[in-house]
Amino acid sequence: MTEFTVTPPSGMRDILPNEAYLRDTVVNKILDVYRKYNFEHIETPSLENIDNLKRQDGGENLSLIFEVLKRGEKLDQELQSDKINRDNLIDYGLRFDLTVPLVRYYVNNQANLANPFKAIQIGSVWRAERPQKGRFRQFTQCDIDIIGVKEESAEIELIDATANALLAVGFNDFEVIVNDRRLLAFIVTALGFTSDELAKAYILIDKIDKVGIEGIKNEAISTFQLEKANALMEMLSKLDQLVQANNSDLVNNFAQLGLNNLNFVELEKIIQPLENVLRICRSLSQDKYSLKFEPMLARGMGYYTGMIFEIKAKSIAYSLAGGGRYDNMIGKISNRNVPACGFSIGFERVIGLLLENSTNGNPDLNKLALIYNPEMDKLDLVMKELSNLQNMNYNVSVIPRKKEISKQLNQLIRHSFSKYCIFKQGEQTQLIKDFNI
Amino acid sequence: MTEFTVTPPSGMRDILPNEAYLRDTVVNKILDVYRKYNFEHIETPSLENIDNLKRQDGGENLSLIFEVLKRGEKLDQELQSDKINRDNLIDYGLRFDLTVPLVRYYVNNQANLANPFKAIQIGSVWRAERPQKGRFRQFTQCDIDIIGVKEESAEIELIDATANALLAVGFNDFEVIVNDRRLLAFIVTALGFTSDELAKAYILIDKIDKVGIEGIKNEAISTFQLEKANALMEMLSKLDQLVQANNSDLVNNFAQLGLNNLNFVELEKIIQPLENVLRICRSLSQDKYSLKFEPMLARGMGYYTGMIFEIKAKSIAYSLAGGGRYDNMIGKISNRNVPACGFSIGFERVIGLLLENSTNGNPDLNKLALIYNPEMDKLDLVMKELSNLQNMNYNVSVIPRKKEISKQLNQLIRHSFSKYCIFKQGEQTQLIKDFNI
Repeated sequence: MTEFTVTPPSGMRDILPNEAYLRDTVVNKILDVYRKYNFEHIETPSLENIDNLKRQDGGENLSLIFEVLKRGEKLDQELQSDKINRDNLIDYGLRFDLTVPLVRYYVNNQANLANPFKAIQIGSVWRAERPQKGRFRQFTQCDIDIIGVKEESAEIELIDATANALLAVGFNDFEVIVNDRRLLAFIVTALGFTSDELAKAYILIDKIDKVGIEGIKNEAISTFQLEKANALMEMLSKLDQLVQANNSDLVNNFAQLGLNNLNFVELEKIIQPLENVLRICRSLSQDKYSLKFEPMLARGMGYYTGMIFEIKAKSIAYSLAGGGRYDNMIGKISNRNVPACGFSIGFERVIGLLLENSTNGNPDLNKLALIYNPEMDKLDLVMKELSNLQNMNYNVSVIPRKKEISKQLNQLIRHSFSKYCIFKQGEQTQLIKDFNI
Repeated sequence: MTEFTVTPPSGMRDILPNEAYLRDTVVNKILDVYRKYNFEHIETPSLENIDNLKRQDGGENLSLIFEVLKRGEKLDQELQSDKINRDNLIDYGLRFDLTVPLVRYYVNNQANLANPFKAIQIGSVWRAERPQKGRFRQFTQCDIDIIGVKEESAEIELIDATANALLAVGFNDFEVIVNDRRLLAFIVTALGFTSDELAKAYILIDKIDKVGIEGIKNEAISTFQLEKANALMEMLSKLDQLVQANNSDLVNNFAQLGLNNLNFVELEKIIQPLENVLRICRSLSQDKYSLKFEPMLARGMGYYTGMIFEIKAKSIAYSLAGGGRYDNMIGKISNRNVPACGFSIGFERVIGLLLENSTNGNPDLNKLALIYNPEMDKLDLVMKELSNLQNMNYNVSVIPRKKEISKQLNQLIRHSFSKYCIFKQGEQTQLIKDFNI
């Protein structure tokens, strides 16, 4: 007999009833908001062909895939070969995000999907990260994406919908920050960085948010040639000063950076839609939240091609949502380029913050225990009371009485029961008692 | 560059928006019913330690587990060993049902759970079955379980709740059939079958439902000694005749079987609760569905210890739900025996039947397309209309106009839009048109 382990696999967790109830409530509130924009819920399998997962711009996620062993004869063959290649042992992997599956889904089902296609995905993803506090190896992502719209109306809908979803679940002190990957590309290219160095520069700039500009200096120097690193640091400081000065004329701001060979016509083409998005979203927000241009917002993923955005809780330094435009991703796997743009709510973080502020364990006014004595009471009559009490809008548990009734009642209070009745045969109406809480 | 496969892994599937919407609706209706009985939704990870999965009475499911490769150093070590043992390459597996995880969850979290603990689980399970029509390798199970009640009030709550859930999602022509595993054990033991042969006999009897008594004869003869097989076949025919005669005195029925050494006191102890459940559930059903004792109901799983039940759609030969009591399962992995009983809705079958009868693709009266011209219209004003129309209770998609507008409108009709408006600058109120359908 093998061992039975009562705990979940390392880094994964059991979700207790109170949290599961909150999660269901939040999911339904988010779905309600997204459906007002005609986003449609879809589902893809948890497993993907392993080659699909390993091919994409997944960055470090590629090393975190839970891989599934082949089965039957195919596996036997591999195991019998002289030199075993681990990659030949596996055929599927658990998805590490919802973007790769969405792109595959779109190409696979395009003929049956609306155009533009507006998708909601709420589902588990798996990453074999080193277990640490607050990071789980299975967690829920909550994404909306618009496929087939190149205009910035897509960005506006995504930002408006996501901000309204966060308002609906109870957040109200947050800020939407917006940038365009191409602005960063302009700066970094003007400083002489090669296209291979761009992705590294984005990842570096992405860290400024947490450690400040000075905080990335050492890494800049160790990653790039000293001259380039210094130029980058200097440019970032200038950019920071301009942002602090709060000059709303973005093109002029860029002019002041003194970059070589800056193409103002091209710059204008990027900045104008960005300004549109900021202005229009501000107007739609009705001051329920704020929006800001943040030229140092970089975001980690390699696949972004245009505008990028995040929502930050103001009181805490947390990002609640992130997203952006990724126009080249579908073209890479299909014979047709299709523009796409998405926004993802940090579902686990949202749930974590709501749990911290929740009135968890408070009595539920509808929750009633119908306690009977299995040795005495006629079960026919007891179960009839179940129906009666449900018809009175109580949620009812039928519970066999234990010897220590007071201990039993205390246990019910701890599980948010607010009422109970001890079944009494012959009573027309059962006596419903409130717990003295 | 590796291949990108646009289809899902073999036997798994993408769920299109119409079906996903139906699934969400059905889940919420089921949850609403179950919560009236204070069942609580819980979640467990999709992965379990592989030893947990391989240890239980999983029957043939054990050979269908998707196994997960170890990672990092642990894997490297195994791959470098002289003789590779496939079992050492893996540490986790995808769950093949929700019962093994539930039992682990209960033992792991007992101190924080209500007593009795009434769980709802709705989640994916994975089985590497040979792909075939209507069978998927990832599918949803929908279970309720009551842990901690030995009395038949648990069976009654489970049956009442599950039947009401099926009524709530739109089924009304079904029958609940009930039996007790111990009655089958009585018969088979009296015929001289050893306890090792019991499980095989259950699996055989379970097939009568599909192929009739005569249909299992050959398998009976090839599985058991000829004499035993014949005795079993004879007894099953007698039992069938008694059931057909519709004699409601169950104890008397058993007397007529002429079994050796039948202990009527023990028999009574099993039959009386069974009759209670039938009588009380009939009364709770208010004739919305029927209930029947079915002495040849066996159910496949090895772990049942008492009453077993199924719900069958009458018009079609399908089972919609199945369950039973499994009092020994928790005791096997913890130091304390705890009674348990569960009922599982065949979620995929329910969805399949509802899809067949659905009015899929009918226009949605709230679904509106706001079409604008990206080259002409001011996006500020267009997006303001998004809010206005949402406030009028429409679900709104903002859609850039294409050259072939009539083709575009036709595509919207196919995706259940019922209304559209072509944005017109300067109009106080936009003209909302109905699609002529």
